Amino acid sequence: MTGSVTVIGLGPGAEDLRTPQATAALAEASDIVGYETYVARVPPRDGQTRHITDNREELARARHALTLAAEGRQVAVVSSGDAGVFAMASAVFEAIEHGDTAWRALEVRVLPGISAMFAAAARLGAPLGHDFCAISLSDNLKPWETVLARLRAAAGAGFVIALYNPISRARPWQLGAAFDELRKILPPATCVAMANAVSLPQERVEIVSLAEADPARADMRTLVLIGSAATRRVARADGGTWLYSPRSAPA
Amino acid sequence: MTGSVTVIGLGPGAEDLRTPQATAALAEASDIVGYETYVARVPPRDGQTRHITDNREELARARHALTLAAEGRQVAVVSSGDAGVFAMASAVFEAIEHGDTAWRALEVRVLPGISAMFAAAARLGAPLGHDFCAISLSDNLKPWETVLARLRAAAGAGFVIALYNPISRARPWQLGAAFDELRKILPPATCVAMANAVSLPQERVEIVSLAEADPARADMRTLVLIGSAATRRVARADGGTWLYSPRSAPA
Repeated sequence: MTGSVTVIGLGPGAEDLRTPQATAALAEASDIVGYETYVARVPPRDGQTRHITDNREELARARHALTLAAEGRQVAVVSSGDAGVFAMASAVFEAIEHGDTAWRALEVRVLPGISAMFAAAARLGAPLGHDFCAISLSDNLKPWETVLARLRAAAGAGFVIALYNPISRARPWQLGAAFDELRKILPPATCVAMANAVSLPQERVEIVSLAEADPARADMRTLVLIGSAATRRVARADGGTWLYSPRSAPA
Repeated sequence: MTGSVTVIGLGPGAEDLRTPQATAALAEASDIVGYETYVARVPPRDGQTRHITDNREELARARHALTLAAEGRQVAVVSSGDAGVFAMASAVFEAIEHGDTAWRALEVRVLPGISAMFAAAARLGAPLGHDFCAISLSDNLKPWETVLARLRAAAGAGFVIALYNPISRARPWQLGAAFDELRKILPPATCVAMANAVSLPQERVEIVSLAEADPARADMRTLVLIGSAATRRVARADGGTWLYSPRSAPA
């Protein structure tokens, strides 16, 4: 039997946000490869081998998965959210491009998932209701100047911005620097939302203004959404707030 | 019983890409509101009323859903893909903001779905593997100059670009004009993918270069992905091609 690699987006956390396609693929796999937290979300199954690897070693993990598949295994590589969004899918194809030519004959599939940005947006209302972008704040793999240039371009052109990987112990200042850069372009009242663990019991979602946005409220798993100047707050009768970006833009 | 509006993203088309959360919410609804094509994707159910409305009247449809909910109905508003991405969620909150104050006391939920861009990306490989954006090419609700400015900003800053609503009978020239604008900024070899009906039997996915991209190959339901200069093609052993955007950017 030919080996395969299936890169699977598990969604934001709740089981009912994992697609039936992903659930079926997990059940068919002989091997599950991924970071500990994500592998822990896969229901255990007799005869299935679990390979837990460090989160920072994405390329090594991708090569490991491809090596197993080349031995004839049916390998599931699991990511949180959508596997194609700052997750494992890109690492798998990078490994293939620069790796063993035989890997190009493997069956490689990517299964989409509910991304963190869309899960957070749904919980908030419709903040991604007009043109938007997603930027990883990690400068491990790209120069910080590139991050800043993209923030400036996106804010200046009126995109809503979703920030992934906003902060970590090894990268403590980047989110604050990003807020500072955005404050040069966007009005102080611009809406900023920080969302953690959306769909899970420990979910925490906050809406603040750009002027008062505090990087210390975020951690490495926080999804940070920066509204455009057009993004609106709507007061709910129960005292809560919906956030949405209108479909229309003024001339 | 208090009425409710649940805005539901049905995903790109295949049933196994609709979340269990969405499926459960559809089963609980007393009324289904949406464009004909999307309502047709909801399994019929005894005692459930279906309200089919014209696709162009999003705000009127939102008001209709809210009016039904204010009468105590449990209303499901259905969209393709993710309901928050160029779909019904934003229209619902716009209707609430400018409508009857009583609507602010309704239970309003948005349930995320697999968006067209992530479904298409997964089928192609990992073209959204680094920073990316989504732009609607429709100039019904925003000036065309705003669309052009966003295309320039995104291409100039190195984002991968997903284009929604690329072309229609009423808007026949916008996609060609967008390609022309992008050709001023991006190399001729930049990868362009056009994806239709991803996950359905009639699925059609093509990869071309920006130089040869032909707007006539798209229709109103095509998801067009424009790579960045860093986006790579990887040849598969079977003659096919994977598309991916590397996680890293050069200094």
